[in-house]
Amino acid sequence: MSANQFGSRFVITSFGESHGAALGVVVDGCPAGVNFDQALLTTQMERRRPGQHGSGQIVSGRNEGDQVEVLSGVFEGKTLGTPIAMIVRNQDARSGDYSQIKNSARTGHADDVWKNKFGHSDHRGGGRSSGRETVSRVMAGSVAQMYMQHASPKTRVIGYAAQIGPLTLSDAEKAQVAKTNIDACQARFPAKNQNEVSELLKKAQENGESYGGIAEILIENPPAHLGQPVFHKLKSDLAMAFLSVGAANGFELGAGFEATETPGTAFHTPESQVYGGIRGGVSTGENILLRVSFKPTSSILDVAKKGRHDPCIVTRAIPVLEAMTWLVLADHLLWSKTDKY
Amino acid sequence: MSANQFGSRFVITSFGESHGAALGVVVDGCPAGVNFDQALLTTQMERRRPGQHGSGQIVSGRNEGDQVEVLSGVFEGKTLGTPIAMIVRNQDARSGDYSQIKNSARTGHADDVWKNKFGHSDHRGGGRSSGRETVSRVMAGSVAQMYMQHASPKTRVIGYAAQIGPLTLSDAEKAQVAKTNIDACQARFPAKNQNEVSELLKKAQENGESYGGIAEILIENPPAHLGQPVFHKLKSDLAMAFLSVGAANGFELGAGFEATETPGTAFHTPESQVYGGIRGGVSTGENILLRVSFKPTSSILDVAKKGRHDPCIVTRAIPVLEAMTWLVLADHLLWSKTDKY
Amino acid sequence: MSANQFGSRFVITSFGESHGAALGVVVDGCPAGVNFDQALLTTQMERRRPGQHGSGQIVSGRNEGDQVEVLSGVFEGKTLGTPIAMIVRNQDARSGDYSQIKNSARTGHADDVWKNKFGHSDHRGGGRSSGRETVSRVMAGSVAQMYMQHASPKTRVIGYAAQIGPLTLSDAEKAQVAKTNIDACQARFPAKNQNEVSELLKKAQENGESYGGIAEILIENPPAHLGQPVFHKLKSDLAMAFLSVGAANGFELGAGFEATETPGTAFHTPESQVYGGIRGGVSTGENILLRVSFKPTSSILDVAKKGRHDPCIVTRAIPVLEAMTWLVLADHLLWSKTDKY
Amino acid sequence: MSANQFGSRFVITSFGESHGAALGVVVDGCPAGVNFDQALLTTQMERRRPGQHGSGQIVSGRNEGDQVEVLSGVFEGKTLGTPIAMIVRNQDARSGDYSQIKNSARTGHADDVWKNKFGHSDHRGGGRSSGRETVSRVMAGSVAQMYMQHASPKTRVIGYAAQIGPLTLSDAEKAQVAKTNIDACQARFPAKNQNEVSELLKKAQENGESYGGIAEILIENPPAHLGQPVFHKLKSDLAMAFLSVGAANGFELGAGFEATETPGTAFHTPESQVYGGIRGGVSTGENILLRVSFKPTSSILDVAKKGRHDPCIVTRAIPVLEAMTWLVLADHLLWSKTDKY
Repeated sequence: MSANQFGSRFVITSFGESHGAALGVVVDGCPAGVNFDQALLTTQMERRRPGQHGSGQIVSGRNEGDQVEVLSGVFEGKTLGTPIAMIVRNQDARSGDYSQIKNSARTGHADDVWKNKFGHSDHRGGGRSSGRETVSRVMAGSVAQMYMQHASPKTRVIGYAAQIGPLTLSDAEKAQVAKTNIDACQARFPAKNQNEVSELLKKAQENGESYGGIAEILIENPPAHLGQPVFHKLKSDLAMAFLSVGAANGFELGAGFEATETPGTAFHTPESQVYGGIRGGVSTGENILLRVSFKPTSSILDVAKKGRHDPCIVTRAIPVLEAMTWLVLADHLLWSKTDKY
Repeated sequence: MSANQFGSRFVITSFGESHGAALGVVVDGCPAGVNFDQALLTTQMERRRPGQHGSGQIVSGRNEGDQVEVLSGVFEGKTLGTPIAMIVRNQDARSGDYSQIKNSARTGHADDVWKNKFGHSDHRGGGRSSGRETVSRVMAGSVAQMYMQHASPKTRVIGYAAQIGPLTLSDAEKAQVAKTNIDACQARFPAKNQNEVSELLKKAQENGESYGGIAEILIENPPAHLGQPVFHKLKSDLAMAFLSVGAANGFELGAGFEATETPGTAFHTPESQVYGGIRGGVSTGENILLRVSFKPTSSILDVAKKGRHDPCIVTRAIPVLEAMTWLVLADHLLWSKTDKY
Repeated sequence: MSANQFGSRFVITSFGESHGAALGVVVDGCPAGVNFDQALLTTQMERRRPGQHGSGQIVSGRNEGDQVEVLSGVFEGKTLGTPIAMIVRNQDARSGDYSQIKNSARTGHADDVWKNKFGHSDHRGGGRSSGRETVSRVMAGSVAQMYMQHASPKTRVIGYAAQIGPLTLSDAEKAQVAKTNIDACQARFPAKNQNEVSELLKKAQENGESYGGIAEILIENPPAHLGQPVFHKLKSDLAMAFLSVGAANGFELGAGFEATETPGTAFHTPESQVYGGIRGGVSTGENILLRVSFKPTSSILDVAKKGRHDPCIVTRAIPVLEAMTWLVLADHLLWSKTDKY
Repeated sequence: MSANQFGSRFVITSFGESHGAALGVVVDGCPAGVNFDQALLTTQMERRRPGQHGSGQIVSGRNEGDQVEVLSGVFEGKTLGTPIAMIVRNQDARSGDYSQIKNSARTGHADDVWKNKFGHSDHRGGGRSSGRETVSRVMAGSVAQMYMQHASPKTRVIGYAAQIGPLTLSDAEKAQVAKTNIDACQARFPAKNQNEVSELLKKAQENGESYGGIAEILIENPPAHLGQPVFHKLKSDLAMAFLSVGAANGFELGAGFEATETPGTAFHTPESQVYGGIRGGVSTGENILLRVSFKPTSSILDVAKKGRHDPCIVTRAIPVLEAMTWLVLADHLLWSKTDKY
């Protein structure tokens, strides 16, 4: 297993530095004959772009365009069963912005850590540790989603912000997410009061403040039987997938940490949803609920980003978490094809 | 990557059903020349046994003896660089206890899920989904620890219960863990008031109640530079490792979910320990703090275990989480040997 | 990928030193529900034993008994989809024979090479570099064969000696192999004149001589579509499998090196069998013919084996090559399940 | 392990169809700090081009230019320890040439096999089964060579044609290869009589004839201790590497098939070079000699190539085999870093 690779059957290899020539990904293991849905890919890439959609006018940042070029693996609109390579050029690099920090580590960033580890690093904008790396994930995740739309058409992956700094969704608001257009909500936070969150983030940007938050991923109608004993339980692969996202520092399945507050006799009832759709590491076919916490964005401390920083990373992380979810689902669906004779 | 395998460089393959002939593990990738510390292995296996040490008189369960037999890979007291295979016989199988439930799924257990997935399963005591599978992890983790004691002698892995049902350690109590003999504490819960936890668990066992809880793993003096971009960040591999443990349903690095409650300007200070010793996915050399939540034990619902169930899984999980931590550390330390020319 | 592991889907991990406690293998990835054919396993292990069957009275050597113990992964006569661990105890170790050579490398053996590489090695009888390691391969290959008998019942793997030192099969003799009981032939060499080969080997043993030779593996009715672009072509995985056997030093598919002597216009005819059943790296469904060359046994130089050495390794290698063939077939058949949507 | 991936430590992922947008490769696992030798890369790509150097005026074919674009992993002239992605655009595609054969399989080609396997394939020029795929290998092999030049500066990999159809090098000619400029020889065949081979190939091209042949790879001064037991012996990984090249159908280490013709007492002498520099699967530090046979080019049968076909594939295969050799060496050198404590 190499460092920049994810998956056992639907395998992706990610590459690219933030300010290098391009970012890209190679998808190896996608079956042949899947319709390559270019519109889906474009939509997902658009959703990932900083300063778009849910994050509205509030979240700015680099505006890259991010045209995906498919280099291989697709012919006459269908996958070939051969590796699908996709790249996005870095157009809006502004290396100049970063030259001043060549020799000064940015607090909260990983520049110094990587420099020590490898002895040589691309100091421009975080290089490979930049959030821009998620471009590769969203491209690959879109292909996984294309495959899943064939193989399990009822499955949906719905990501939304459940908490942004001091603001938290109510249970009633959460109950509506499957029927809500999340991208139409301010900061992908589907609270009834949309002003509250937009005010919070606007002020944060003005004041150089940032917030942590929580993203929730709801998998509606997942295939049953996904997940492998012992180390590739569905929950362990999802945890790995989500924690591999920058600034993610917590993961919960179902009731998560709150489960510790309920006695077992109350917790384990036949009706309860507390297992989160996964038992013994394997999906039951019930909806799966996952939560990921993010620490406050450290870019507030970044001289180069003054005035255009992103006050809460959760909104931008949602399409990335969705992509990782599709990747895990596709990987395990393929894996399950050989479970029994 | 196969399903029962963990690690990229220090690779383990686990096998065995709860009521089959034996459980075992093969460690492939441990360098040659490491002193094979039989005493360490025995101690760790003893610490894993239900009804021992921290879990005191309170936690009962199967009492297996669990003599490890080393089948290969060790010669004249040192590792050979060849695969180290270790097995433990299942002596205390009592298959009879389980025959009644052959056709009735146990609520909260995975029996039915696995049965559906594979079309054929060993119904006796959970088969491979049993907690007994952790025998393999502790054997392998002990070898990882032997290697780490050579390669990074100052590194310590300290696991303890930070919460058991309604009881939680105070910050003052947590500050003492490195100096405390955790195994001497009731239920590995190092609270000043040891009666409280023993009373809670005794009553729970009498009443057929169970509790969830939180285990914390403190890595003292970890090597720096562990963790690989992008998908094998140290935090993602640790999350995967911990979530692969049965009943684990949440993971936190450093401040975790609480980080969401602090504004960035307060969170990101040079002095803070909130990053948990990992930045950009790579260890900084600072102490690493990890938390894992467990849902309440479902064995209370298990007819076969009435009167001898384990009211909180956290205590027993601690040696397993420590073993997984050593495995991740050894894997990444070996990996880091090829970071730079 | 770890060093002692083979396969991508049907994955085996081999362990054990020649004079350690046991040799063994873990098979991970065999689907659930395959009948575990104990008789087949016993037969194949018997066929692997030095001094048995084809090698008749001529080839002596260690007589191990080699009772296989299945430790996991099989329940009520069927595979569980969980790892299948199997071991064989080393009963006939005679370490004493080897103590004299602790500090003297045996010419043609790898003792010194391994000692230098790992800095520490088990000098007894070659340790892990011993031919006894093939016990693990035959156990695993038998399970692969069980799976293939379900999944592709018409497929047969037929191994035989095509050359033993100066003796070579004629084309007419080769044409009969599928109808011949190879194991009933002297040295598994199905020549019409059986005396010739038995005389040759008898004299060689008396005179301390040894011979190289060629084994051929004929795969009758292989499934079509096995093999993956680009690096896991069926031919490349077979070459790797066969060259991993000790003393093997050459590999041919179909016409092999002889193909170099025919002009293309004569070589490429629609009727010809010269492609060996594999085109573009993928099986066509036609019979596949493979050849493996072995250098003369170096054990003639081994003081400890005087008078009971094996004058030609080919006979003994045949069940091992067959096992490797079944492993590659099972691996690629599982792999092909996800070729297309 | 995914299908288009090679290596365990120095891992490459290849992608691209012959007539798609681009071919490329991602190298993951190259240590940081290696000088990226652009001139070496350019030279090796030039050497791979059909119609160049050794193949002289004789061997024509597509003339692609093949400018490599490095997309990631290199900064300020040094590797970053992050994935190195490189692509080459397909400029000279001429899809039109191939439209006529969309529905007619070309004899000896794999078009029909792949079509059946995947249900959908790129019929243009072989798609991914085209020899053009070797562009990816040569790019990756060049990076492996750059690493090896740091890590083992005395190691040389020398490839040459030892046989082209009816013509074979004499032992005297072979003894000179290390001192010969192979690329200056007609068809990379370093015979004294250079006219003979150029005449042979010229006539073959005129007459629509093709020949098989044998390439030899001499590794001078390889590092010792490369190769891992049991399945990743150096010889098995080399066999896999070479057999993964199109039209390769045989492999020999050292004496190879000829070893079968020498009795053991004559074969195993302390002075002999017959082991080929590898014992017990591990390199001894002595020179390693490898041979690969190729069947006659099937492109003679290809309507689209009439008059510009390549009469012997060996010449073109040599830079590819060299690239694969560097990849195996780099992979195993990195692997050996963790052999002992």
